[in-house]
Amino acid sequence: MRIALYGYGNIARGVEAAVAQNPDVTLAGVFTRRDPSAVRTKSGAPVFAAADIDAHASDFDVLIICGGSATDLPEMTPALAKRFHVVDSFDTHARIPEHFSNVDAAAKTSGHVALISGGWDPGMFSLTRLYSSAILPEGKDYTFWGRGVSQGHSDAVRRISGVRDARQYTVPIPEALDAVRSGSMPELTTRQKHRREVYVVAEDGADKSAIERAIVTMPNYFDEYDTTVTFISAEEMARDHAELPHGGFVFRTGKTGFEREHSHTIEYRLTLDSNPEFTAGVLVALARAVDRMAKRGDKGCKTIFDVAPADLSPLTGEELRAHML
Amino acid sequence: MRIALYGYGNIARGVEAAVAQNPDVTLAGVFTRRDPSAVRTKSGAPVFAAADIDAHASDFDVLIICGGSATDLPEMTPALAKRFHVVDSFDTHARIPEHFSNVDAAAKTSGHVALISGGWDPGMFSLTRLYSSAILPEGKDYTFWGRGVSQGHSDAVRRISGVRDARQYTVPIPEALDAVRSGSMPELTTRQKHRREVYVVAEDGADKSAIERAIVTMPNYFDEYDTTVTFISAEEMARDHAELPHGGFVFRTGKTGFEREHSHTIEYRLTLDSNPEFTAGVLVALARAVDRMAKRGDKGCKTIFDVAPADLSPLTGEELRAHML
Repeated sequence: MRIALYGYGNIARGVEAAVAQNPDVTLAGVFTRRDPSAVRTKSGAPVFAAADIDAHASDFDVLIICGGSATDLPEMTPALAKRFHVVDSFDTHARIPEHFSNVDAAAKTSGHVALISGGWDPGMFSLTRLYSSAILPEGKDYTFWGRGVSQGHSDAVRRISGVRDARQYTVPIPEALDAVRSGSMPELTTRQKHRREVYVVAEDGADKSAIERAIVTMPNYFDEYDTTVTFISAEEMARDHAELPHGGFVFRTGKTGFEREHSHTIEYRLTLDSNPEFTAGVLVALARAVDRMAKRGDKGCKTIFDVAPADLSPLTGEELRAHML
Repeated sequence: MRIALYGYGNIARGVEAAVAQNPDVTLAGVFTRRDPSAVRTKSGAPVFAAADIDAHASDFDVLIICGGSATDLPEMTPALAKRFHVVDSFDTHARIPEHFSNVDAAAKTSGHVALISGGWDPGMFSLTRLYSSAILPEGKDYTFWGRGVSQGHSDAVRRISGVRDARQYTVPIPEALDAVRSGSMPELTTRQKHRREVYVVAEDGADKSAIERAIVTMPNYFDEYDTTVTFISAEEMARDHAELPHGGFVFRTGKTGFEREHSHTIEYRLTLDSNPEFTAGVLVALARAVDRMAKRGDKGCKTIFDVAPADLSPLTGEELRAHML
């Protein structure tokens, strides 16, 4: 399968690295809205102007669109799904129905397969919620995120006056995890589930206590959490906070039996050194499924809920049944 | 969707209880090879002779076959798949390819959908192995079982002379779980991964030390494990060991990045008060998918690998995307 990348940020670089781990996949090229001569890929894959993509349509089977969910993907995915089989990682949960509908209209009329919202949340976490609630219809779900870097919260801190750089970690609280894992189905407040750790490089002469106050009281982002703020040097930031780890937990506890006398707990946990590289691994597997679905004549917008698991794997049905079932 | 049960053991009773938790599902009846008048269902569902099943073909959409994997299912599933859409929980891993092939031939020629090997291992654990290896192609899998009752090991102990009753628990070793969870990809021996706990009710005057020796040295079943044997009374057995808890863990640790410099660990954990009731929950969801696949004109033998997750849920695509993605 030949894939191409639209955009060349963190996730695209993760896909580029993942291609070397998937012998059935090749990278045909990267399409960028920047000057192509200014972009050099790590693998040496060719870089083309996004405006020229139609001329390369026969060079790839599936296009992985690596743009931001706020403004890029709502425009890009419907437009590109008119011309190519595509995969995106649209992750604004509340706007998924609207995005689905726009992409579905574009893909169905043009006869393409377009998979949206690939990754781990939405993605693998969503799958766990679906499978678990189908198996245990009477129960309660819990999702925890972290320990990991939240890009949105880091950006919010960077916008505070006097902040030169910032990194925010979302941290699940161990006592809450233990309470959920016990099967007791606790009611947990926002503050009881997660805490937030912020590392800040302040500008010279900035009022650190004003910065700290601005952070911990920031509505929606921090005010409902216990937040610790630590001031560090630019050198410490570069040395200790250059990576993008993430992960989290999805739980479902449910009751079964004629008297609901038995309790069951399902736990799915991710511990990720690199959020973009793991996301990229999911996207490559989904691109494989899109290619297979397209070759079978399927069309329209899909999510990971519509993908038969066997389509994600390079192994044959026989191999999967013999070695993984 | 109307389901029927073939057999009325622990898993069938679990399905019967699960029907009450799935408003879109009704139980049309139970087919038994015993005298139907001697079988009374807990829900009051009617009981029919297995020999009369063809006369009831129009009363149900999917038949869940609740037989043993050793001798029942290899005969029953191919025979019944010639006449009905069926689901089974065939769990002899090594014989799955042969069972698949027999069932596929029967289902394809007769135009039925037959899903085999539903449950949690094979089943949900298999799915975790497939998804995880597709996302992290370079890595290592680990599966742990328990703490839970192993029926096969309990039966093996019951066959020892002087044993009146026995219960065997498979127990994962916490240090091994921690080592795997750390992402260090340890090499673990059989003895390092699990230990075995056996509870025995001895016959009056039996030689307990001979029984203990026979257990801990039993080839394949116990000789490669650290096993503890505890003698208890029949009353203690009935009071403390009447339930069938089980569960376990599936892990995959994989490396990503151009230099394989990032490590990721996926963990899927089940903690089940009742192994048969959880298995039944999976089977009911799979029966729903079989019904949908059959109505779309699909046919042949399937496994959980071939089922699009959305088909397992009573919710619509819109509902799933809005609330679970």
